[in-house]
Amino acid sequence: MAEHITPRSTSYSDWYVDIVLKAQLADYSPVKGSMVIRPRGYALWERMQSALDGMFKATGHQNAYFPLLIPESFLHKEAQHVEGFAPELAVVTHGGGEKLEEPLVIRPTSETIIWSMYRKWIQSWRDLPLLINQWANVVRWEKRTRLFLRTTEFLWQEGHTAHATEDEAREETLRMLEVYRTFAEEYMAMPVLTGVKSESEKFAGAVNTYAIEALMQDRRALQAGTSHFLGQNFAKAFDVQFQNRESALEYVWATSWGVSTRLVGALIMAHSDDNGLIVPPKLAPTELVLIPIFRSNNREQVLPAAEKLADELRKEFRIVVDDDESNSPGWKFAEWEMRGVPLRIEMGPRDLENGQVTMVRRDTGEKEAVALDAAGARARALLDEIQQNLYQRALEFRGANTHYPATWDEMAALYQGEDAPGGFAVAPWDGDAATEALIKEETKATIRVLPFGNEEEARGKTCIRSGKPARHMAVFAKAY
Amino acid sequence: MAEHITPRSTSYSDWYVDIVLKAQLADYSPVKGSMVIRPRGYALWERMQSALDGMFKATGHQNAYFPLLIPESFLHKEAQHVEGFAPELAVVTHGGGEKLEEPLVIRPTSETIIWSMYRKWIQSWRDLPLLINQWANVVRWEKRTRLFLRTTEFLWQEGHTAHATEDEAREETLRMLEVYRTFAEEYMAMPVLTGVKSESEKFAGAVNTYAIEALMQDRRALQAGTSHFLGQNFAKAFDVQFQNRESALEYVWATSWGVSTRLVGALIMAHSDDNGLIVPPKLAPTELVLIPIFRSNNREQVLPAAEKLADELRKEFRIVVDDDESNSPGWKFAEWEMRGVPLRIEMGPRDLENGQVTMVRRDTGEKEAVALDAAGARARALLDEIQQNLYQRALEFRGANTHYPATWDEMAALYQGEDAPGGFAVAPWDGDAATEALIKEETKATIRVLPFGNEEEARGKTCIRSGKPARHMAVFAKAY
Repeated sequence: MAEHITPRSTSYSDWYVDIVLKAQLADYSPVKGSMVIRPRGYALWERMQSALDGMFKATGHQNAYFPLLIPESFLHKEAQHVEGFAPELAVVTHGGGEKLEEPLVIRPTSETIIWSMYRKWIQSWRDLPLLINQWANVVRWEKRTRLFLRTTEFLWQEGHTAHATEDEAREETLRMLEVYRTFAEEYMAMPVLTGVKSESEKFAGAVNTYAIEALMQDRRALQAGTSHFLGQNFAKAFDVQFQNRESALEYVWATSWGVSTRLVGALIMAHSDDNGLIVPPKLAPTELVLIPIFRSNNREQVLPAAEKLADELRKEFRIVVDDDESNSPGWKFAEWEMRGVPLRIEMGPRDLENGQVTMVRRDTGEKEAVALDAAGARARALLDEIQQNLYQRALEFRGANTHYPATWDEMAALYQGEDAPGGFAVAPWDGDAATEALIKEETKATIRVLPFGNEEEARGKTCIRSGKPARHMAVFAKAY
Repeated sequence: MAEHITPRSTSYSDWYVDIVLKAQLADYSPVKGSMVIRPRGYALWERMQSALDGMFKATGHQNAYFPLLIPESFLHKEAQHVEGFAPELAVVTHGGGEKLEEPLVIRPTSETIIWSMYRKWIQSWRDLPLLINQWANVVRWEKRTRLFLRTTEFLWQEGHTAHATEDEAREETLRMLEVYRTFAEEYMAMPVLTGVKSESEKFAGAVNTYAIEALMQDRRALQAGTSHFLGQNFAKAFDVQFQNRESALEYVWATSWGVSTRLVGALIMAHSDDNGLIVPPKLAPTELVLIPIFRSNNREQVLPAAEKLADELRKEFRIVVDDDESNSPGWKFAEWEMRGVPLRIEMGPRDLENGQVTMVRRDTGEKEAVALDAAGARARALLDEIQQNLYQRALEFRGANTHYPATWDEMAALYQGEDAPGGFAVAPWDGDAATEALIKEETKATIRVLPFGNEEEARGKTCIRSGKPARHMAVFAKAY
């Protein structure tokens, strides 16, 4: 049998680490806080990259690459930015055997180096909008790390755009938030809430930060992507002005937005079970595993038939045939379940006699006999159903774990104590950072987003904690 | 008109920099020695990546990702490796506001961190071969840098494979050399010599280094990719042993191989001319540019016809329509020539009356009228011809600049003095590093490769410099 995974009910965090390590998605590295992304984990990231990159290009963005190392002084040009990132910097002090005149930091994010270049590239309204994305690694020194979810180095993409007007920049910010929502829901099968972050949770240097927030199976929230409206903060810090159509000089308006390898962690935690990883078909590096079942006396019947079917399916599907004779069928079933392949096809001698195969869904475990000549069509339909079902299941789970507490006691009970239910709490908030801090102190729950239109809904209500007039309907949760 | 480019005859190096900057492939960054790869340059790299990645996967390799930061002590485990790389290291001494217990170096290459992981992953012959590739950034502190060709940070891929036998590892080393040769010739349209490096030019830590070497238009050679047979050097340094089929412990055999963004520089220098960049069609982000030519009185005839043709061609080609009315056709011709688009299609009112378009090749400047309904087929044929012609032209150029000096005076004359012809010199060498060093001192020419089978050809000959019995027919050149 495949290796044992700690059940979620015993320890959710041990279960998570077991899946990452035993499905060989990643491994601890000898460098504290850094991880190694193994081929099976990297293949998931590659499929995510490919889908996102297509969506970025379809919305007019181009890829580029900016330096890893940034002069330390650049970060100091934007006051909030340096305040947010200074505690997390890795600093290069020596290069080529000599002490550097000015220390260089490894990018924790690239606004500063990019806006120093935009200053060279933007002179006129004709140079705008400038719509650039970068796939890169970044380093943020973290005290407590967790595979995929929080590591000192991670891979991500960061979009950095420059616009002639505030309206255009705000539109871009929301466009990319929508790209992230679409990707999370349609590819990752992971429903997300969208909205704006409170002041205390926003990106260091942004005017507004928008986010997509998902709910994991342990009822904790995970911020899965952010899109920032940066106003003219970086244009002013790096003196990036353009000549408008009336030949007057104006500062440029900016956005930035990113998702990271954290999404791989989110994917695992959103769908997987006690048998291992579950991957939505659209992101599965292998969609189908075909397992021929035979003994020495019927090897010559089963194997060629399996190969024939595989050759046909290969035209349309990403398929692996597991005909390794050193493992038993049962071992293979468990192994491929562990690896999260969405659909298993079994082909034994009795199947063959009946001109059929057996298909087994990873998400529900349901088995069905399928006529050989309908295998491709049925596999396509089942993969679509699995993709839909994973989304639907996660959506129902989120619905069942979204609460509307009427009183502070009800809300506190959601988060206090070991067996507290957790999940999302939607509640009126007075908009005061002190109240937000108090709620966090008492429950460890933070404001995940202020949904679009929340101000309307808050009208006439009183804050769940302070009793003062509410300004927002906020969504709270304990979060990763 | 588009911006002026220094002619090659005036200054080859100014010409190169002009193309890089004015075709907006890259830009200098505020960090000494680092460059910014702009969208048009990055698009070339993306197409290279895509082709190479497909070839790596077709030969059984998987992608993974290993940490950027490596404990300094790891490099010291392989004596030659640290000797080669120590002078080029960037060192992180502080993280998260504190001094690190052990300094971390930014990877100059990843053998050490990867073999520290292979130790965990490899126990048995069943775990072999392990065929992993990584797309990543690396940093090597360089005193003299040049856009794309030599920069402190660069992007590359590095393959790292582990094998049970020496034969398998040697076979892999040559297989990947052949992948590089195929890529250089079939995609980059750049003929390359292959062979082994002399001891003095090999990778620090390798047993043998193989390379592909191309000749640039200034008759200097450029090493465009390397594949290393590492023997058991890193397995011994990191104690990576496996249990063989007979249950005995053996050290693992290794290879590594890489190409980098340097290839973009090679691509520019191999084909471009005084009008700007020339890109082989297979790597061109834009294959066709369609330029409608009209005035206000025939705008409504020409523009819709151009859009109709573009929609049709778009199904098969990467095409851009330049209908910007603020620039003249002449300006656009020069601009798109500068950018290196392989084929220009002009469509004016007279073309339309005749039911035709005009096609202009970037490589030769040849024009021809093509019937509208044959546009797609003719474009395909012309792009194929351009791809072939660029290769053929580069091959003939290399042929014309490959010399077989009979005496040391003839050879020295190839490289000494300002107007020396340069190019490749094929000459017998005694195999002595002292002779190699003397030749380098006197001519600045180095041994680029020892071609396969060169020992046979050297038999009975005497060394071009020392007069001693020759052991190799070596290929010399001044190199980038």
